[in-house]
Amino acid sequence: MKLVSFRASGADRLGIVFPENKVADAQQWGAANGMDVPDSMLGLIDKGLEFRDSMSAKVKATAVDDNADYVYDYEAVKILAPMPKPARNIWGIGLNYTEHVAESARSLDTDNKLPQECIIFSKPTNTVIATGEAIKHNGNQTQQMDWEGELAVILGKGGFRVKAEDAMDLVYGYSIINDISARDNRRQGQWIVSKGMDTYAPMGPVLITPDEIEDPHNLQIITKVNGVEKQNGNTKNMLFRIPEIIQDISSVMSVDPADIIATGTPAGVGAGRDPQEWMWPGDEVEIIIEGIGSLKNPIVDDTY
Amino acid sequence: MKLVSFRASGADRLGIVFPENKVADAQQWGAANGMDVPDSMLGLIDKGLEFRDSMSAKVKATAVDDNADYVYDYEAVKILAPMPKPARNIWGIGLNYTEHVAESARSLDTDNKLPQECIIFSKPTNTVIATGEAIKHNGNQTQQMDWEGELAVILGKGGFRVKAEDAMDLVYGYSIINDISARDNRRQGQWIVSKGMDTYAPMGPVLITPDEIEDPHNLQIITKVNGVEKQNGNTKNMLFRIPEIIQDISSVMSVDPADIIATGTPAGVGAGRDPQEWMWPGDEVEIIIEGIGSLKNPIVDDTY
Repeated sequence: MKLVSFRASGADRLGIVFPENKVADAQQWGAANGMDVPDSMLGLIDKGLEFRDSMSAKVKATAVDDNADYVYDYEAVKILAPMPKPARNIWGIGLNYTEHVAESARSLDTDNKLPQECIIFSKPTNTVIATGEAIKHNGNQTQQMDWEGELAVILGKGGFRVKAEDAMDLVYGYSIINDISARDNRRQGQWIVSKGMDTYAPMGPVLITPDEIEDPHNLQIITKVNGVEKQNGNTKNMLFRIPEIIQDISSVMSVDPADIIATGTPAGVGAGRDPQEWMWPGDEVEIIIEGIGSLKNPIVDDTY
Repeated sequence: MKLVSFRASGADRLGIVFPENKVADAQQWGAANGMDVPDSMLGLIDKGLEFRDSMSAKVKATAVDDNADYVYDYEAVKILAPMPKPARNIWGIGLNYTEHVAESARSLDTDNKLPQECIIFSKPTNTVIATGEAIKHNGNQTQQMDWEGELAVILGKGGFRVKAEDAMDLVYGYSIINDISARDNRRQGQWIVSKGMDTYAPMGPVLITPDEIEDPHNLQIITKVNGVEKQNGNTKNMLFRIPEIIQDISSVMSVDPADIIATGTPAGVGAGRDPQEWMWPGDEVEIIIEGIGSLKNPIVDDTY
């Protein structure tokens, strides 16, 4: 199933996307279908993976009642980020595609050797915004705002020292994330400000469950700026695949249910282009992952 | 007032520390004193700064009833971390004392120039443990586990672009934090694994409100390993003081109520000693800040 967080009739709701661009309020859909569905994505994730599977099966088996008062037109509601304010960790993986390692070594201060283990960083929760919401460009903090289109993995279970062969059992679903990076704002080499400023993690539009994704390691990721293609990669070219990423993070730090993992970006970032390209107020950046959707955000001036 | 999170009679509780080593269950104390006090530190912080001030005034004005069934001997309860599982951000500030900048440049890969702005990093929430709980030493991840005794600031209000002159109005209270750092586990220079492994942020024992601290910029910080003094510094020697730290973080990233800021460590870390010294299973590390208390933790082997 495809899940969204959305706002309609003045309330924030958890939604299920049905064919023909309908969104059902998940809690009310649950009441009509004999399932006790919570009213938020975090609440749903905390109900666990078995509940997800039962719900997904029922969603597939049941036509939605277009006339029910809890069913909305997708175009008529405001789509929020899948978790509007994530309560848990947002992990990032740096330099996880071969060509991106090479372009980063040419243009940034990173090593040109392939990493032997994941380069882990984190993004604070106030980075997350929804599709359509504005990425804030503060000209006093950056003149090098870059895009990074990525597959996001959302966990449904926590763990410590999870083995790769068990790691996919932790995955709740997938989404799209734009790991916005101010290349010129690294303090003593630390990436947190560079990648952690407010609005620097547009995410969504949907959270899609694994039963809808044939192979998460064969998804095309396309990034466009003002409609012009900048990145066109495929998750099959990840250096560390999802099970290895989960194994590696959890080998040193416990992961929690509802943690988000930004799995790294393919080649084609602005820093790696010749000449280099950056995003500026007035631009619009879009990430498309086949089968998941399109995440599109304008850049607005927020200089202070 | 001095607040603790604690476990007694099988339940986790918010507590108020009274003279003669008594701890009152704060919610029950509130019921007996006409105040609607929540049952957790996070709940209390979310009630805001005015409530804190009223409560602190009433705590000072009221003798605790030693015979009440909600009053415990401090020594008889299990002290938890002030926020056993922090729900918000844990910010760290690197290289915030002059002598520590110098010793780090000699022994680590950091710059010997004084930073012109805060070096910001973050620690995941699973780092936090209570006084008395074990710091896990994984010999496969580090052979250079170091101590960093620090003043922790807990915020009571969020904000973005907070000015230094207004920043102290955000402070909810203070505590002690040990910013444990595996010096040999930096990935591509990122500090998150080095400083973010589970158990790497012992914190407590108490959260003390600002009315009990005459000057947060004049507090002695002492670190002992196995009873031997290793650090003896004073918060008056911070390069960036608390208002400037809050101004600087919030100039780029929104801060939230209940955020924790580890304000940096004075000289005397193991990496800066000649010869270098590290912590090993069987050791015990203690941080003492005058007026706040003692945070003491054993190191245990957790090699895997």
